[in-house]
Amino acid sequence: MTLPPDLDAFFVANDARLRDELFDLLRIPSVSARSEHNADTARAAQWVADNLSNAGLRATVHPTAGHPIVVGEWRGAGASAPTVLVYGHYDVQPAEPLDLWDSPPFEPAIRDGKLFARGSVDDKGQLFIHMKALEAHLKVRGTLPVNVLVVAEGEEEVGSDHLAGFIEAHRDELTCDAVVISDSAMFAPGLPSILSSLRGLAYFQIDVTGPTTDLHSGSYGGAVVNPAMALARILATMHDANGRVAIPGFYDKVRDWGEKARRDIRALPFDDERFRAETGAPILGGETGYSTLERIWMRPTCEVNGLLSGYTGEGAKTVLPSKAMAKVSCRLVPDQDPREIERLMQAHVARVAPDGITVTVTALHGGRPWRAELDGPLYDAGRRALAAAFGKEPVITGEGGSIPVVGDFERILGAPVLLMGFGLPGENAHAPNEWISMDNVTRGLRAVAVLYEELGNR
Amino acid sequence: MTLPPDLDAFFVANDARLRDELFDLLRIPSVSARSEHNADTARAAQWVADNLSNAGLRATVHPTAGHPIVVGEWRGAGASAPTVLVYGHYDVQPAEPLDLWDSPPFEPAIRDGKLFARGSVDDKGQLFIHMKALEAHLKVRGTLPVNVLVVAEGEEEVGSDHLAGFIEAHRDELTCDAVVISDSAMFAPGLPSILSSLRGLAYFQIDVTGPTTDLHSGSYGGAVVNPAMALARILATMHDANGRVAIPGFYDKVRDWGEKARRDIRALPFDDERFRAETGAPILGGETGYSTLERIWMRPTCEVNGLLSGYTGEGAKTVLPSKAMAKVSCRLVPDQDPREIERLMQAHVARVAPDGITVTVTALHGGRPWRAELDGPLYDAGRRALAAAFGKEPVITGEGGSIPVVGDFERILGAPVLLMGFGLPGENAHAPNEWISMDNVTRGLRAVAVLYEELGNR
Repeated sequence: MTLPPDLDAFFVANDARLRDELFDLLRIPSVSARSEHNADTARAAQWVADNLSNAGLRATVHPTAGHPIVVGEWRGAGASAPTVLVYGHYDVQPAEPLDLWDSPPFEPAIRDGKLFARGSVDDKGQLFIHMKALEAHLKVRGTLPVNVLVVAEGEEEVGSDHLAGFIEAHRDELTCDAVVISDSAMFAPGLPSILSSLRGLAYFQIDVTGPTTDLHSGSYGGAVVNPAMALARILATMHDANGRVAIPGFYDKVRDWGEKARRDIRALPFDDERFRAETGAPILGGETGYSTLERIWMRPTCEVNGLLSGYTGEGAKTVLPSKAMAKVSCRLVPDQDPREIERLMQAHVARVAPDGITVTVTALHGGRPWRAELDGPLYDAGRRALAAAFGKEPVITGEGGSIPVVGDFERILGAPVLLMGFGLPGENAHAPNEWISMDNVTRGLRAVAVLYEELGNR
Repeated sequence: MTLPPDLDAFFVANDARLRDELFDLLRIPSVSARSEHNADTARAAQWVADNLSNAGLRATVHPTAGHPIVVGEWRGAGASAPTVLVYGHYDVQPAEPLDLWDSPPFEPAIRDGKLFARGSVDDKGQLFIHMKALEAHLKVRGTLPVNVLVVAEGEEEVGSDHLAGFIEAHRDELTCDAVVISDSAMFAPGLPSILSSLRGLAYFQIDVTGPTTDLHSGSYGGAVVNPAMALARILATMHDANGRVAIPGFYDKVRDWGEKARRDIRALPFDDERFRAETGAPILGGETGYSTLERIWMRPTCEVNGLLSGYTGEGAKTVLPSKAMAKVSCRLVPDQDPREIERLMQAHVARVAPDGITVTVTALHGGRPWRAELDGPLYDAGRRALAAAFGKEPVITGEGGSIPVVGDFERILGAPVLLMGFGLPGENAHAPNEWISMDNVTRGLRAVAVLYEELGNR
């Protein structure tokens, strides 16, 4: 597939206008975490709705208990054509600390081929790419080969509290054959990427209690079990000598990704030493037998996120602490289930806890892991679209973190999700000097335009 | 030995005056930790010096960079007679929280045979017992069978910062054959006690560092060694399954107290369940093969006093912490040396620390353990004196905590130390409603009077 000349010509002819429109959107400080920006966030929602209307979609701003959800709809392809749902978000992270920005966060500026602004890559710029690709089809050809739904939320940066409920409540109107999301990054410059996996999460607090109050470590030490020492002994049972999680049953549901997936991961241009230097750790570590990317993408973990017990100030205080607390979380991979991992964690801690203390394990947060089925028309279309725009076959990547909304769409709507991002490593998504590559905007517009065409060819 | 009738008659005849004097001393709020009480502390020092003068000693108030040290001296027994040094302290703990006192802390009150006041037992009341026993000898007989030095400091409750230096600087004037201290408690009511051992201390901070900053546990978790998990694994190596400290070489210098000492300890009226209930711990714990009192008095420990790493607030935050810290301290028994234990701890931690992190062990505080030689004229005299006053042979007790000044006297002056206390369990030494048993004051006066007589008989 090559780029359709008519759509390409539209992007060339409208280049300046599109840039102006993107700058307009980026100028709105729609910081969802700050209530003083509520009017800005509402304004950004309305801007997206108006812009979709101008492109030819029917757009509605749906209020929620938080920030509104914008839905755009075009059903001109008819009942027999597939329906594609595009998800994005128009809210942004706070811009602070402002003094670390080289140009103001809400005054877009292009330097060295990079467009700097809060929201440029996360996610206004990438949402805009979809909006303009749809517009190109509708303006140039008057039609699209697929029915289209656009769902743009304003709470992604604050936990997407109202999105899953909205999808549930509107599941009939939102029924679709595929979900496409551009809110991630390419593996490297010039290397188009499809993000195929996300890890899930099971987050716990472990509380160990011994004596009723802190005791004098001289008068009682040696005769009372020390809760902090007991906690350390519990935590030390979480891994074996090979860095594997040693909670019985932990790996029972872990799917084998197969030799091909591992070969593909190992073929990616990844530099362990550069990654190590980025973290500042003396050497890398982890589970024996896996590469760094495999450890982050396809293997589950058990990490201590926090520890607190007894005296933590300066100098020496001889207390035998009454309590000790650890925050412990597991990153999960398919098909691990956070609730089952909670049961296994509870049983393991109860089994290894020493006598002389009481211990409780409280589940604080959970999310399912996700992995795409990489076969099928959605992924074939994605691959061809990216290859056409970037002149290179896309690579398949993973992600060690969690994006709960992906699982929500798949679970509630029963449609496969394609994650096709145009960010780049080092784009400062949540940091000062956020940027998106202008070349990726240009190629992204073409890739997405081709994607809609490809999705209609079936 | 029975009570000498002449001294006994003096105490009976002067009972009301002695009580008034003790009340006077207790009314002075000589709180060494509070600079607003500096004038009170100075007044208490002068009170002690004046009272010693009235008894017939030569008394001097020595200024220090902190609170003064009072020295009383009587050398009438001649150069061939032994010299006994009595140590006590005239400063007291702060009295707060005041609203928990049933009567004001600096208005002495007797209820149910208990004299309530801040400092009643710790240590004004016990120092006073010595002052009045000396006075009894000098007033009734005009002489003492031994030369006497009284050293009363005003900084015991704030670390005795200037005492060791003072003893060093005045070692010639303070040369003596025995040191007697009454600043401890009897094992139980009616059971006179000689405190024969104190544990020492080696206090460390262990700092583990991994990545330069806290990392996202999704994006990095599994490929970078977690410092908090590494710390837990290090701490878990500190004990074996029997509760013994597993640091190689840790027990090499631990002296065997012998079967008789263990038999004596086991013969003491001690109730494990009552002790457990006092702590609130579900069950007691510790080193296999030792009783609770043995664990606290004659066995060394390794305790975690504090833990801190990563996120410790409410809820879930998915950080892979950059650092993890533990405060760890060992209680030591003869002949463990805090500096040698530091070397062993350093070597052990270096050996067990996992790859992928750096770890440092910093010694914060150290103190030597102490154990009395229970044979010899000083202890024989102490036993006989207590038996005469209480009608019962004293028991030999231990203490799990540390009183550094005991080792200082022994080390600098080369004289044995006798710890003969008249407090009782539950006397609230550092808490509201501190008290001393009036019966113990009465018997204590007789015991100490006999002690000086006994010490001259050799």
